[in-house]
Amino acid sequence: MSHSEFDIIARYFDQPGLRAEVGGACSLGIGDDCALIRVAPGHQLAISMDLLSAGVHFPADADAASIACRALAVNLSDLAAMGALPVGFTLGLSLPDADENWLAAFSRGLAQAAGRYACPLLGGDLVRGPLGISIQVHGELPEGRGLRRDGAHPGDLLYVSGTLGDAGLALDLILGRLQAQHLSEAERDSLLESYYHPEPRLNLGRALLERASAAIDISDGLAADVGHIAKRSGVAVMLSLADLPLSPVTARVLGEEQARLRALTAGDDYELAFTVPAAASATMQELAESLGIRLSCIGAVVAGSGVHCLDASGAEVPLGRPGYQHFNAAENGGQSTP
Amino acid sequence: MSHSEFDIIARYFDQPGLRAEVGGACSLGIGDDCALIRVAPGHQLAISMDLLSAGVHFPADADAASIACRALAVNLSDLAAMGALPVGFTLGLSLPDADENWLAAFSRGLAQAAGRYACPLLGGDLVRGPLGISIQVHGELPEGRGLRRDGAHPGDLLYVSGTLGDAGLALDLILGRLQAQHLSEAERDSLLESYYHPEPRLNLGRALLERASAAIDISDGLAADVGHIAKRSGVAVMLSLADLPLSPVTARVLGEEQARLRALTAGDDYELAFTVPAAASATMQELAESLGIRLSCIGAVVAGSGVHCLDASGAEVPLGRPGYQHFNAAENGGQSTP
Repeated sequence: MSHSEFDIIARYFDQPGLRAEVGGACSLGIGDDCALIRVAPGHQLAISMDLLSAGVHFPADADAASIACRALAVNLSDLAAMGALPVGFTLGLSLPDADENWLAAFSRGLAQAAGRYACPLLGGDLVRGPLGISIQVHGELPEGRGLRRDGAHPGDLLYVSGTLGDAGLALDLILGRLQAQHLSEAERDSLLESYYHPEPRLNLGRALLERASAAIDISDGLAADVGHIAKRSGVAVMLSLADLPLSPVTARVLGEEQARLRALTAGDDYELAFTVPAAASATMQELAESLGIRLSCIGAVVAGSGVHCLDASGAEVPLGRPGYQHFNAAENGGQSTP
Repeated sequence: MSHSEFDIIARYFDQPGLRAEVGGACSLGIGDDCALIRVAPGHQLAISMDLLSAGVHFPADADAASIACRALAVNLSDLAAMGALPVGFTLGLSLPDADENWLAAFSRGLAQAAGRYACPLLGGDLVRGPLGISIQVHGELPEGRGLRRDGAHPGDLLYVSGTLGDAGLALDLILGRLQAQHLSEAERDSLLESYYHPEPRLNLGRALLERASAAIDISDGLAADVGHIAKRSGVAVMLSLADLPLSPVTARVLGEEQARLRALTAGDDYELAFTVPAAASATMQELAESLGIRLSCIGAVVAGSGVHCLDASGAEVPLGRPGYQHFNAAENGGQSTP
């Protein structure tokens, strides 16, 4: 191979979208021992890191531009869940070889996503090794604020953004557990789009800073992630199965009943689940309309512990395995940040 | 395997040394969507990320505590080279399985290093995959300051801290290119110590903020890294071969002449190379004594370009391959941050 690390960085990663703006929060970017970040007065920095291994978190042969886009988007979803807005990201890239086509596509997808979310590349590392991606996002939010997991109170209502289940179904398709002939071309495209191009709910997260008592992004599955809010807030959450917002594709393919159960446990949707005081719930519909995002009230916070899911008759639905856990299930593409 | 990601984090990574202090720069650590960092007024954040792959950057069967210690130390060396002091780090850990002995040793080594350098664990990710470590360090330094690579001027003098060559020789030993019987036990221990427990020059870096015009840490080899200063500063650097500070072990094992040549190119020493205006050079000896670190004047900055190494007679020594570059040499344990 003829490319050094420096050549690769100059050739593929110094391009519009990825380049930090002069005068922005990044006062020194790629090319020194460290990058330097200025945090605006009265603000703090929010950080989140994800590792993605080929074959575990994405198919090794997937389109490199899509891998890049998804890798950045799932990290930005963590910023959204904290109410932070992006400042920039660092990239650690481990590659078995310097495949020019792969690098060109990967950096193009990355630049598109970085440009779209105003999240430039601040620095990183490029090494030879098994295909893997490490991304850390950096965001800014007012000091003393933040959508934490531990602020839910009895009496709060639980909401979720968007619809649930598409990314999980997309993974079935990618892994061959769902046959493509059961889907129309439009359905297939829509599923893959939801998996590879999740939309981080940055504007929603920022708007919720003023309204929500707790929030989390649904990467491990709704029930598991709402369970984190319950545990850290010392409360119980009652989920209403009938109120879960299903995607039309998932409902058609799985049938409504199965789709509801899948919506509870399937990961990778990267929507926000959040609790708001009952008094603030009146403004949720207005917020949904102003942001153009569906917001559904799917439950309530009560005294107690754990997540309890009730069907339309009020009977409790057994939750089974609560979401994805690493080291127990390799086939699942989900991932989470401790 | 019976351990979930959450169990592993609670069991191994929530321990003294790794835990962020309440009231410190980290206002929210492990366990939420993001960690939150407060940057002191008038200060900025310095960040640096390194990826380390088993078999490329460390031997897969090396002692896990040593791997952890080295992984954090080499990152801290990047903060030192910027003049920043540690705030905390994030860890991405990819493991093929949840080996309890490995995790116990790794987290113990990490906690020792983190405690020693006051650099707590802020968050991260734990996934199943090939053994690999991703670390990002976060440091603080006064706004508008920083030991960049691009500030060297003709007339400045070039210094290096410590001694050179030990880590490269240690790698020869680890990789079997140097037979252990050529070394005394004390020499072997000293070499392995220098490889696995490099001392990040944090206090030196901070002191140089007021004195140095440019700095870099020597991870890719002296000549290659000084070359980065030369290139980014638009100057030439004249290196004096006779003035390179050799470690006694390296000089004895390789002979003085070979040891000097190796000191030019061997990576992994994690010392600082820096330039200071000639007027400030008078204070270097005093600084060396106050910090207890050897500081050697090894060259000068002149107009021109490139790095030129002169022997005692003033003749130019050919530099050969300038340091380690990824994708060209797998056997080298060096690594660098773009």
